[in-house]
Amino acid sequence: MSALIDRDVLFASDPRQRSIARGLYGSIATLPIVSPHGHTDPRWYALNEPFPDPAQLLIVPDHYIFRMLFSQGVDLQRLGVPPMDGSRTEADGRAIWRLFAENYRLFRGTPTRLWMDYVLSTVFGIEELLDGSNADSVYDQIADQLAKPEFRPRALFERFNIEVIATTEGALDDLSWHRKIRESGWGGRVVTAYRPDAVVDPDFEGFSDNLDRLGDMTGEDTGAWSGYLAAHRKRREYFKTFGATSSDHGHRTATTANLGSGEAEALFQRVRTGKADAAERETFRGQMLTEMGRMSLDDGLVLQIHPGSWRNHSPGMMARFGRDKGFDIPTRTDYVAALKPLLDAVGLEKNLSVILFTLDESSYSRELAPLAGVYPALKLGPAWWFHDSPEGMRRFRELTTETAGFYNTVGFNDDTRAFPSIPARHDIARRVDCAFLARLVAEHRLTETEAFELARELAYTLAKEAYRL
Amino acid sequence: MSALIDRDVLFASDPRQRSIARGLYGSIATLPIVSPHGHTDPRWYALNEPFPDPAQLLIVPDHYIFRMLFSQGVDLQRLGVPPMDGSRTEADGRAIWRLFAENYRLFRGTPTRLWMDYVLSTVFGIEELLDGSNADSVYDQIADQLAKPEFRPRALFERFNIEVIATTEGALDDLSWHRKIRESGWGGRVVTAYRPDAVVDPDFEGFSDNLDRLGDMTGEDTGAWSGYLAAHRKRREYFKTFGATSSDHGHRTATTANLGSGEAEALFQRVRTGKADAAERETFRGQMLTEMGRMSLDDGLVLQIHPGSWRNHSPGMMARFGRDKGFDIPTRTDYVAALKPLLDAVGLEKNLSVILFTLDESSYSRELAPLAGVYPALKLGPAWWFHDSPEGMRRFRELTTETAGFYNTVGFNDDTRAFPSIPARHDIARRVDCAFLARLVAEHRLTETEAFELARELAYTLAKEAYRL
Amino acid sequence: MSALIDRDVLFASDPRQRSIARGLYGSIATLPIVSPHGHTDPRWYALNEPFPDPAQLLIVPDHYIFRMLFSQGVDLQRLGVPPMDGSRTEADGRAIWRLFAENYRLFRGTPTRLWMDYVLSTVFGIEELLDGSNADSVYDQIADQLAKPEFRPRALFERFNIEVIATTEGALDDLSWHRKIRESGWGGRVVTAYRPDAVVDPDFEGFSDNLDRLGDMTGEDTGAWSGYLAAHRKRREYFKTFGATSSDHGHRTATTANLGSGEAEALFQRVRTGKADAAERETFRGQMLTEMGRMSLDDGLVLQIHPGSWRNHSPGMMARFGRDKGFDIPTRTDYVAALKPLLDAVGLEKNLSVILFTLDESSYSRELAPLAGVYPALKLGPAWWFHDSPEGMRRFRELTTETAGFYNTVGFNDDTRAFPSIPARHDIARRVDCAFLARLVAEHRLTETEAFELARELAYTLAKEAYRL
Repeated sequence: MSALIDRDVLFASDPRQRSIARGLYGSIATLPIVSPHGHTDPRWYALNEPFPDPAQLLIVPDHYIFRMLFSQGVDLQRLGVPPMDGSRTEADGRAIWRLFAENYRLFRGTPTRLWMDYVLSTVFGIEELLDGSNADSVYDQIADQLAKPEFRPRALFERFNIEVIATTEGALDDLSWHRKIRESGWGGRVVTAYRPDAVVDPDFEGFSDNLDRLGDMTGEDTGAWSGYLAAHRKRREYFKTFGATSSDHGHRTATTANLGSGEAEALFQRVRTGKADAAERETFRGQMLTEMGRMSLDDGLVLQIHPGSWRNHSPGMMARFGRDKGFDIPTRTDYVAALKPLLDAVGLEKNLSVILFTLDESSYSRELAPLAGVYPALKLGPAWWFHDSPEGMRRFRELTTETAGFYNTVGFNDDTRAFPSIPARHDIARRVDCAFLARLVAEHRLTETEAFELARELAYTLAKEAYRL
Repeated sequence: MSALIDRDVLFASDPRQRSIARGLYGSIATLPIVSPHGHTDPRWYALNEPFPDPAQLLIVPDHYIFRMLFSQGVDLQRLGVPPMDGSRTEADGRAIWRLFAENYRLFRGTPTRLWMDYVLSTVFGIEELLDGSNADSVYDQIADQLAKPEFRPRALFERFNIEVIATTEGALDDLSWHRKIRESGWGGRVVTAYRPDAVVDPDFEGFSDNLDRLGDMTGEDTGAWSGYLAAHRKRREYFKTFGATSSDHGHRTATTANLGSGEAEALFQRVRTGKADAAERETFRGQMLTEMGRMSLDDGLVLQIHPGSWRNHSPGMMARFGRDKGFDIPTRTDYVAALKPLLDAVGLEKNLSVILFTLDESSYSRELAPLAGVYPALKLGPAWWFHDSPEGMRRFRELTTETAGFYNTVGFNDDTRAFPSIPARHDIARRVDCAFLARLVAEHRLTETEAFELARELAYTLAKEAYRL
Repeated sequence: MSALIDRDVLFASDPRQRSIARGLYGSIATLPIVSPHGHTDPRWYALNEPFPDPAQLLIVPDHYIFRMLFSQGVDLQRLGVPPMDGSRTEADGRAIWRLFAENYRLFRGTPTRLWMDYVLSTVFGIEELLDGSNADSVYDQIADQLAKPEFRPRALFERFNIEVIATTEGALDDLSWHRKIRESGWGGRVVTAYRPDAVVDPDFEGFSDNLDRLGDMTGEDTGAWSGYLAAHRKRREYFKTFGATSSDHGHRTATTANLGSGEAEALFQRVRTGKADAAERETFRGQMLTEMGRMSLDDGLVLQIHPGSWRNHSPGMMARFGRDKGFDIPTRTDYVAALKPLLDAVGLEKNLSVILFTLDESSYSRELAPLAGVYPALKLGPAWWFHDSPEGMRRFRELTTETAGFYNTVGFNDDTRAFPSIPARHDIARRVDCAFLARLVAEHRLTETEAFELARELAYTLAKEAYRL
C-alpha cells in the first residue's frame, strides 16, 4: 500500500492464511465506508474550511495520544492541552509535533501507531517512519497539503469514500451545523445521533437547568414525568429529521430499571427536585434506558448502550484540565442482572434493536454473546475504545462468534473524532475480520464462498442493516 | 473424511503443526467413545424404536439451534416448540427442516454448524452444504435412513463405537428404562447418574412434595434431617445398581456450606417447612453439596458441580414456553470463597473426586486451575456448554494446563441429548486437543512421544479413570 | 541448546515468525541478567557453601512442584516437607528425587517442566528426559557436580551472568547476610528490598511485638503514629545502604486509603492496641500503601504492589504443615476503585514509580493497562506467579501492549527462590517476548529495526530503569 503500511499488514504470516486473507480483503477493500457511530464535528462538513495545523488536527484532540505521552511524563500543556486556570500552553503546532515525533517510539505496538502511520502515508503521502529527525519535514509536508482544497473536509469525505457518517449530538443541541450541511446542497450524507446524557443523568453538570432548557425547546412541561417523556419524544423526532437512526447512552454501569408508572413518576419528582440519593439517581438512569427502549419501539431509533467507563478518574486532573483528558478507566461490568429489567420489558421485541458495547472483555463469552444469541432485541457492538485494536478485535471475534454468530454483530464503528483516521480504522477492522475469516477457512471451519459473503457483510452490510442506514 | 468435513478440520494451517496433529489424531481417531456425562434418553436404548422425523430428531430439541434462530426473529412455534397455552405449533417436520435450512447461514462460525455438518455427512452421507435449495432432498435422505434398522438407537450406539454412556436421572426417577435396558440382554453399556436438584434445591418446583415422594420411595422419614440424608444414601445406592458412578449438581452458584450438625438440622427444618428465606435456601443448597461430598467418600460416586447459569432469564419466555428454552445465561462465578466450606471439609481427601465446571472463563486461570492444581479432591471438567466449541476448548487448555497440568483434567464430556451428534462432539474435542498438543510439540515444549501418550489419555483414559468407569 | 531444550523452544512454528524470533533472540540471548525482584537467600552468597543434595536444592523448597504432586495424591512428607507435629518426613534426598522423577510426567505442559529441563540440561549437563528409570543416575550426576567448587553459589552467580540480583527481606531483618556479602569483598551485586508486611499488616502473626521490635531497632516510638512512620523511614534508609531500590507489598487486595492525618493517627491507635475490626485493619493496610508512596517520593524506592492472593486457603494444611505450602489461591481483584486513594494522593507524580502485579488476568486489558497507560506513577510488573509461564507471558503482552505500550512495563522478574532456575526463567521470558515481537514484525505491525531495540529493552534496559538499578 505504501512505504509505511505493508500490503499484508495484519494478516497472519502463515502462507495459507495470508493467501486467503488477501483474497477476502481484495474483494472488500474499496467498499464505501459506513460509519454509524462517531464523534466528528458536523461543523467541519458545514463550513468546509481548511483543517488547522498538523498538531491541532492530529495530536491535540487525540486522547489516545496525550494519555500515553502523559503516562511517560510529558506535560499536557506542552502538547497544547490548556489547563483551566489559563496558564501557559504550547500554541506552536510545530513544537507540539516535534515533541510527539521524538516520542513516537512510545506507541510501538499500539493502534495509535497503526492509525498514525496510515494517516501519514495514505492521506499525506509520507514515506518515512516518524521520529525526531524528520519531524519538521513531515510537519511541513502535512501543513502544505492541509492548505490545499483537496484536503478540506468535504473533499476528504469524498476521497475517503464515506457513504454515510453519523455524528453525535446532545439532546439540547440545535443541530444547526446539520441544518447548514443540508442547506448547502452538498451531497455528503451526514446524520446525527441522539445523546441525551445531559438530560437523563441526574449527576450531569447542570442537570436541572438542562431540563428547563429541554422544556423550553419542546414546549413540554419537564417538571412533570409525562411532559419530560414527551419532550424526549419530540427531540428524538427532531433528530430524526436530521437523519438520526440511533440514540446513544454512556452510563457508568449497565443498570436498567422498569418501575411502574406511579413509581417512575415519584422517582422523577425526587430527581427533578434534587432530592434523590445516589441509588435513586442510578435507578433513574436505568429507568430511562428502558423508557428509551419503549420510545425506540415507536420511532425506530436504534438504542446503543456504552457502559462501564469510570469517567475522569483523577480529581487532580479534572480540577486542572477538566473532563475527557484520558482519565476514563474501564470497570468490571455486569450485564446479566443489570439488563434484566430492560429485557423483561422489551427484550423479546423483534423490531427493537439494542446494541451493547463493553470495556470488560470478560463479559464477551460469559454474558454478551449468550444474551445476544437469544434475545431478538439485542446485538453486539464491535470491540470498543481500548479494545478497538487488532488484538482487541481478534478477541471480540474469537470470544463472541461461537455463541452469538456473526449475524448478531453489527459491523464496525470507528467511534472517532479524528476525521483523517477514519479510513485507517475501517481498513484495520476489515483486515482483522478477513484474517479471522481466513483462519476459519484454513482450518476448514467455513467454506471460502461463505467467507467472501461474510467479509462483505462485516465490512459493509451489517452496519447498514443494524443501524437502519 | 467427507465432502462436508475436511480430513484436517480444526488443525492449524501451519504445515508443521498440521503434520504433527494429523499423526496424533490418527493414533486416537478410532478409540471407543467414553461418555461419562450426558443427557440422552435411556428410553431410546430400552425400546430401540426408530427415531422420529429429521426435524424432531435434529432441530426441535436442540436449544443451541432454536436460541440462535429466535435471536434472529424466528418464532419458536414455527420451529415446532409448543407454547404452554397449546396454541398452534408447527408439526410438519419438513416445514421445520426447511426453515432451519434457509437460515443455516446464521450458524456460520458456531459449533452447531460443525456438529450438524458432521451428523449430516458422517451419519447420513449428505455431501452438500445445507441451504434452502437442497432442504427437501436432504430431509428425504435422512428420513429414508431413519426408517432403516441400522439407524435405530442400538445400531447407532454400536456404529458410534460407544464403550459406555452415562445418562442423567433425577433422584425420584424409578430408573425403569435403565432396568429395561438391563433386562433386554443387549450388550450396550448405559449407566445412570444421580441428579438430586429436585430434592436438594428448596426453590425447585414442588420441593416439599418431592421430599414426601423421596420418603415414600426409600422408607425414610424425610421430615427429619437424618432421615433425609439416609434417603439420599439409599437412592445413591439404588442408582449405583444401575451403574451410576457420579452425581451431578446444577446450582446457580458454587456456594457451599459446612454447618455443624445441629445447625444443619435446624436449617433443614426451616427449609422443609417452607420458612427459610433466600439466604437460608442458598445455604441449604451449599450444605447439601458438602453432604454429597461426604456421601461420596463413603460410596465412591464422583461429585460434579455445574454452577453459574441463570436459568430461564426471561420471565416472558418462561410464561409462554416454560423451562429450558435457550434463556439460561452464564453469570460471573466465584469459586475460591464459595467452595471453601466444602474444601475445608473434604478437599484434602485423595479418594474423593469432585469435578468442577464453569461458564465463567475468567475463572480458569485465576481460580479453577490453581484450586485443582493443589487440592487432591478437585479436578477440572472440560469446557462446558457455550464453551464446548473449538475456541472454547482451546482456551480451556491454554488457560488451565500450565497451572493444573493435563492430569487434573478429566477428558471430554459431550453433555448432550442430541444422540446423533455424539461422535461429532468427541471427534471435535479430540481434534482440538491434538491441535493443542501439536503446537506444544512444534514449539518444543513437549516431545512427540509424550504427545502421543497424552492424546490417548485426553481422548479416552482420563475420562474412564476420573469417572471410575 | 541441548538435548532437552531445543534451540527454537517457544518460537512459533511458522517459518517466517521463527526466523525473525531467532534473529531477535540471538541479539539478546547473552545479555546479563538483571533480577530486580526475587527471593533467593542472601546467606548463599554470603557463605558460598556448597548447595545441599539435589532434592533439597531442586524439589523440597519448590511450591510449584509439591503442590502439583500433592494434587495428584502424593503426601508432602514423602517429598521432604515436614509436618509441624514433627512426625516422620522423608530425609533421603535420593528417595525424594525418585518420587519426583517417577511423577515427572504430571508436569507436562507446565512451566515447571520447562524450568527443570533447562536446569538439568544447561546447568548440570543432563541429556535425557527425566523419568523413574534414570532417576538415580541423574541424581548422582547432579550430586557429583554440586560438590565441585564451580557449583557453589558465587561461581554459579558469575556463570549465570547476573549483573544484579535483589533479594527480599522483612523490615525487621538485620541484613547481616547482606553485610557479610559486602564485607567479603566479592564483586557480585546483591541488593535487598524492603518488605514490611509484618509491621504493616495488623493480621500478621505477632504484629504488636513486631512493632515493639521496630521501635527498638530504630529508636522511634512505635506506639505513636509519627514515630511509627519515622521508624519506617529509618528502616528504608537502612535498606538503601544495602542497595535496596524498592519496597514490596503482598496485600490480599489492592485496597488503598488516604485518610487525613488525624484520622490516620486515630486508626493507628486502634490497630496498635488490637481494637481495630476487620474493616479498619484493611483500611490500615491500605493507608500504609499510600504512606509508602509518600515515602517513596522522598527516598526514591520503587513501590511494588502484589495483591490478590488468598494465602493459606486450607486451614487443614495450615494446621498440619504451616504457611506457604502451595495453598495460596488467586482471587478476583479490583484496581480501579481500590487504587484511587493512592492515585489521588500521588498518582500524578512523575518521579514516583509504583509497579502493579496481578493474579487476575481479566484485569490486564480492563484495568491495569488503562491505568498504567495514563498515570505517570504507574507501571505494570510482568506476568506473575501462576502466570509466569509461556502462555501467561504471551497473554500479558497481547492484553496490555495496545493500551499501555511496552514502555509502561518493566521487563522481567524471576520472583524465585530457586536459584539454579534463574537463567531458565529469564531465557523463557526473553524467548516469549521475542516470539511476540516476531509476530508483530511478521504481521507488519512493527519494523524489524524497532523489534531489535525492543528485544533489548524488554530483556535488560527496562528492568534497570524501572527499578533504578
